[in-house]
Amino acid sequence: MTQAPTPPLPESPSLDAVLKPRSVAFIGASNRPATIGAELFRNLLGYAFQGPVYPVNPRERAVFGVRAWPDIGSVPDEVDLAVLAVPTQRVLAVAEACADKGVRGLVVITAGFKETGPEGAARELALRDLCRERGMRLVGPNCLGVVNTDPEIHLDATFAPTFPRGGSVAMASQSGALGVAMLDAAEALNIGVSSFVSIGNKADVSANDLLEWWADDPRTQVVLLYLESFGNPKKFARIARELARRKPIVAVKSGRSARGLLAASSHTGSLAGGDVAVQALVEQCGLIRVDSVEALFDQAAFLAHQPVPKGRRLAILTNSGGPGIMATDACEGAGLDVAELSDGLKAALQEHLPAAASVHNPVDMIASASAEQYAACAKVLLDSEEVDALLAIFVPPIITDSRDVAEAIARGAAGSGKPVVACFMGHHGVEEATGALEAAQIPSYAFPEAAVRVLARAADYGAWLQRPVGDVPTLAGCDVAAARAVILGALSRASDDTGEMLTDPEVSALLDALGVRRPATAEASSAGQAAELARSFGFPVVLKLQAEGVSHKTDLGGVKVDLRNESEVFAAWESLARAAEAHGVTMSGALVQAMVRGGVETILGVSRDPTVGSLLMFGLGGVHVELLQDVAFRIPPLTDVDAAALVRSVRGFPLLDGYRGATKADVGAVEDVALRLSALVSACPEVAELDLNPLIALPSGAVAVDCRVRVAQ
Amino acid sequence: MTQAPTPPLPESPSLDAVLKPRSVAFIGASNRPATIGAELFRNLLGYAFQGPVYPVNPRERAVFGVRAWPDIGSVPDEVDLAVLAVPTQRVLAVAEACADKGVRGLVVITAGFKETGPEGAARELALRDLCRERGMRLVGPNCLGVVNTDPEIHLDATFAPTFPRGGSVAMASQSGALGVAMLDAAEALNIGVSSFVSIGNKADVSANDLLEWWADDPRTQVVLLYLESFGNPKKFARIARELARRKPIVAVKSGRSARGLLAASSHTGSLAGGDVAVQALVEQCGLIRVDSVEALFDQAAFLAHQPVPKGRRLAILTNSGGPGIMATDACEGAGLDVAELSDGLKAALQEHLPAAASVHNPVDMIASASAEQYAACAKVLLDSEEVDALLAIFVPPIITDSRDVAEAIARGAAGSGKPVVACFMGHHGVEEATGALEAAQIPSYAFPEAAVRVLARAADYGAWLQRPVGDVPTLAGCDVAAARAVILGALSRASDDTGEMLTDPEVSALLDALGVRRPATAEASSAGQAAELARSFGFPVVLKLQAEGVSHKTDLGGVKVDLRNESEVFAAWESLARAAEAHGVTMSGALVQAMVRGGVETILGVSRDPTVGSLLMFGLGGVHVELLQDVAFRIPPLTDVDAAALVRSVRGFPLLDGYRGATKADVGAVEDVALRLSALVSACPEVAELDLNPLIALPSGAVAVDCRVRVAQ
Repeated sequence: MTQAPTPPLPESPSLDAVLKPRSVAFIGASNRPATIGAELFRNLLGYAFQGPVYPVNPRERAVFGVRAWPDIGSVPDEVDLAVLAVPTQRVLAVAEACADKGVRGLVVITAGFKETGPEGAARELALRDLCRERGMRLVGPNCLGVVNTDPEIHLDATFAPTFPRGGSVAMASQSGALGVAMLDAAEALNIGVSSFVSIGNKADVSANDLLEWWADDPRTQVVLLYLESFGNPKKFARIARELARRKPIVAVKSGRSARGLLAASSHTGSLAGGDVAVQALVEQCGLIRVDSVEALFDQAAFLAHQPVPKGRRLAILTNSGGPGIMATDACEGAGLDVAELSDGLKAALQEHLPAAASVHNPVDMIASASAEQYAACAKVLLDSEEVDALLAIFVPPIITDSRDVAEAIARGAAGSGKPVVACFMGHHGVEEATGALEAAQIPSYAFPEAAVRVLARAADYGAWLQRPVGDVPTLAGCDVAAARAVILGALSRASDDTGEMLTDPEVSALLDALGVRRPATAEASSAGQAAELARSFGFPVVLKLQAEGVSHKTDLGGVKVDLRNESEVFAAWESLARAAEAHGVTMSGALVQAMVRGGVETILGVSRDPTVGSLLMFGLGGVHVELLQDVAFRIPPLTDVDAAALVRSVRGFPLLDGYRGATKADVGAVEDVALRLSALVSACPEVAELDLNPLIALPSGAVAVDCRVRVAQ
Repeated sequence: MTQAPTPPLPESPSLDAVLKPRSVAFIGASNRPATIGAELFRNLLGYAFQGPVYPVNPRERAVFGVRAWPDIGSVPDEVDLAVLAVPTQRVLAVAEACADKGVRGLVVITAGFKETGPEGAARELALRDLCRERGMRLVGPNCLGVVNTDPEIHLDATFAPTFPRGGSVAMASQSGALGVAMLDAAEALNIGVSSFVSIGNKADVSANDLLEWWADDPRTQVVLLYLESFGNPKKFARIARELARRKPIVAVKSGRSARGLLAASSHTGSLAGGDVAVQALVEQCGLIRVDSVEALFDQAAFLAHQPVPKGRRLAILTNSGGPGIMATDACEGAGLDVAELSDGLKAALQEHLPAAASVHNPVDMIASASAEQYAACAKVLLDSEEVDALLAIFVPPIITDSRDVAEAIARGAAGSGKPVVACFMGHHGVEEATGALEAAQIPSYAFPEAAVRVLARAADYGAWLQRPVGDVPTLAGCDVAAARAVILGALSRASDDTGEMLTDPEVSALLDALGVRRPATAEASSAGQAAELARSFGFPVVLKLQAEGVSHKTDLGGVKVDLRNESEVFAAWESLARAAEAHGVTMSGALVQAMVRGGVETILGVSRDPTVGSLLMFGLGGVHVELLQDVAFRIPPLTDVDAAALVRSVRGFPLLDGYRGATKADVGAVEDVALRLSALVSACPEVAELDLNPLIALPSGAVAVDCRVRVAQ
């Protein structure tokens, strides 16, 4: 048995061995019907892999007519990729044999690893270590397999029932079941796939690796992800942000409700729950996030064929009022504008339409609309500067032929360089239009809402593409090394996972190192000392109860403000002492602080999210944050553009910006503090929670009146 | 030519003549293919109408083989229903001939009426008047037709290409195009229809009439509506609220963005834009609102076969982790709870499952799950008190047969009395399950999100059904007649559509009549008089600029608060005069008002919505309303239950309710004022805008510090 020698594999730690193998061995290939061993082998052969496929099975002479080999070692030629569907207990030994054979890529279908508990996790770690030591890339374990539709490769190493057709959409799924659903949906919607990887337990190959590989894959123009977790969110953010500049990434990130594992004690922590962290990551990276597999493919059908809109102004062209109204409604919900048409443009449309038509947007050409009218009006609208995208709706009346209309829309859209989508409603008389729309690469949706949603998400992405990237600026008077020393000092005291609160002197040292302003503050252990400090700071002052274990002082009457003279300070001291007693805590003293007058209360905070790591929050002070949850989040490190956007993302922002004639607060100073916190947590992931609450934004500058910091490993 | 005599039609102004005719004439029937005259006639015959069909066409001897008549008058027998598809100009004359013939119902397909402009509107009015005078009910004009699937009637008088199958779902569409889409969707999803009416321009028969007819129609169990407007919203609210107690109504209300026609000058008016009015109406009436035709039928498929859930606790049963997570995520977004399972319940599940399965909710039986395991676990979950509904997800693996699983789920669900839905994912190997699920009346969705959304909306409806209806209480000291006199007095001054503002004395009289408390207030025309009034009220007081055309006084420094003595009053007067001058307005005087101290600022207001009429708004004062738009709306008349819900609907409600140890405000007093405003506007639709801003909620009672009222026809 002689075969042509396989050309050498390029030296690289890349995924080529997995996605561009020249030969494949399938260990666990089987003749028994309705088994993975049979289904996957039939896919390998049936999809016509361009190199040899070697079935490995010690009990068979041949699998579906192909000469079988008892083990990988006995395969007579070089093998690039080995696909394993063998019992869990045998995976490690087989992987070792593959390494001995010189295999460069493994796809392990077999389950029974990390997903089953500690024993399986240990088995998975051993498998990963083996692969790393022996220079093999590993997809899985516990996965559905991989696909590459490249005609020169033509690999379907999955047991899914669908042969994907070739195209420009790359797909990865963390769930095998959703992987099957994705391949199914792509087939049903005629979306061409470049490659597909079911990443399973992600022992080695993760979404990050795939994003890097697809970045350089000329066949891939759009990336679809179904993810349940980010292995390394910082790396994901970096890679995704870079790739999204060139190729759109659409993601279903699942597991939004999985949070709430950490009991959070700070304001920031309690607000950072749920999905905000992932949402922040997604927005900063320019990902298009959707919430179902259906929406994933609606979006893919658009991105694979249509340009990204340069703005949000949509023109709606229809032959029926109802669906036009539904599209208009959907625009409001999704964040698209129904373009206001100028008189000139309306007149230009009117030239092609009967008097009864409406040339306002939605342009309702009424039921008598002809294919020619579709073509002419589509062209008029798309040629106009007033329109960024077109939605053409067609409800088949008895007279007009759907296919003619589809071709007319394509004609009207040709060469505009602007995105066009169609909505041909109803099942009857529409099928014949599908071919014409497909030929013109115009995606068509069954209902206007889906079409609008797709365009809206594409417009969001377009806006992200146009946004300047920004810089992570160098900050004057920000000594991150000194700040880190404070953090590590406090951390050395921490005895368990809950970590340690910074003491008041440590907080002072930290804010000084970062260059964050705070009012004159000192601790007094007696009423007399407090009065003396107040005199030295200048009245009025604030007195804050110091007592072990009390963090939300306001709740128990532990903060006295606007003390204007010594006798008020003495009275306040007494009052604090009584409040402490009433709540059964021991007053150790009080903080005396120069009172900041005027300005706007804000809060800047940091928390740690199990999915994405450190997370920065901004909000306006008091009820805005706690009750109304009017807050915004970003993932550090922040650029100057991010900081500006963060502060402007809350609904209450006008209160900082001279609302109703009030003095404007120094928004730049708030952004500056946000950047300083970003610098801190980028260098010190040990900051588990931090609240500047309130951070008072003054007409000039911003002052941190209170600061709580918890550090933990 | 002799025919059996038609039995007499019952005396009634009901829709029976349209929906239960014993004979039908089709005026405009045609042999020419691809015309409405041909398509509609073929539907009448092809669907096998149970009585005779008389084609009327002066140019044909027969239409598709049926003896034709030159005009309605020459039809030899009684005709209950006439369907008209004749040129617009001939509709009126033909309708008159129908009346002469004794026809009791008309369905006018012909377009060219109100939708085309004033001339068409006049034509429509004439048609409606004729029908009313001559005792004919009229569907349309400008509609698609009507369907009744009752085997004793079997009427398809539409030109849609679908014959609907019989069932319990009634449907009405204001848009013909959406009507076609609805019939299509019902067919595609195998949803049985009881009757369908395309109401077109609604010259006579409206959704309200249909709701009343369906209320008494034993074949109808679920109602689906596609609406663009409410003809008579008050009537709609009353009828829908009543029907929804017995049969669920699912509605797509479109035209959400169509508002903004009225330039609003009050706070309430400016906040009442967009969709809030319709949303309030929908919530109060127990309607299930969805935002697409797709979602309409997803919901219908559920309601037609499954009971309404009694609570929000969902159990998810799956053989694959990914879709389970997606369902969990969707629950969070849609407002369902993923039921927390007790240890006992988990142990009961574990008895049927392998160790690797997860008995937490979502219950992941892993890929090896057998049909028997589905049946057993479904039963355990549904029998438990901890679960209100079940979602069974199945991803076909190679081994387990979809149909077996479908049957097993049906077995496990039998007799539970709780709702069960299925999600069989992927296109392959799932078709065979469809029949089994349909036989068991378990709706199945292609993706978990749709299933969860449907259950969530059904649970909302269930909660509405359980909510007490409440009463519109009688209010002590509320003299609505006196209030109405004030309103009409002011209205008599109004010269144009923008209406008239109430003067300060009128406002006082109005609030007194309603029994709404306000602080001592009087107008001063000089600083001296202001000081004198202040002395008589007691300090501190508030001074408010009075000047023509100034309504938002705060914006231009026209309000001075906390004036503690006479000299402060004089200084404030000067300051108001300067402010007026600076803004180029003439100060006519100032209001002196006893200052209300403490309490929580709220706002209660009324505005008029073009869709639903009067609209009541509640919010917390200041930035809560204007900037954060934390407001809630209800349609009057309010019951006590509505008033309580209104006040509790804003996010900031805890601020009224003793937030963080603050004194509780008198929430009951705020509800009481809301009920008084409701009584006012129920009697006086002439109140175009009204703001109590602020209405201060005190520890005891509530005081309206400022009140602006605009009246208009």
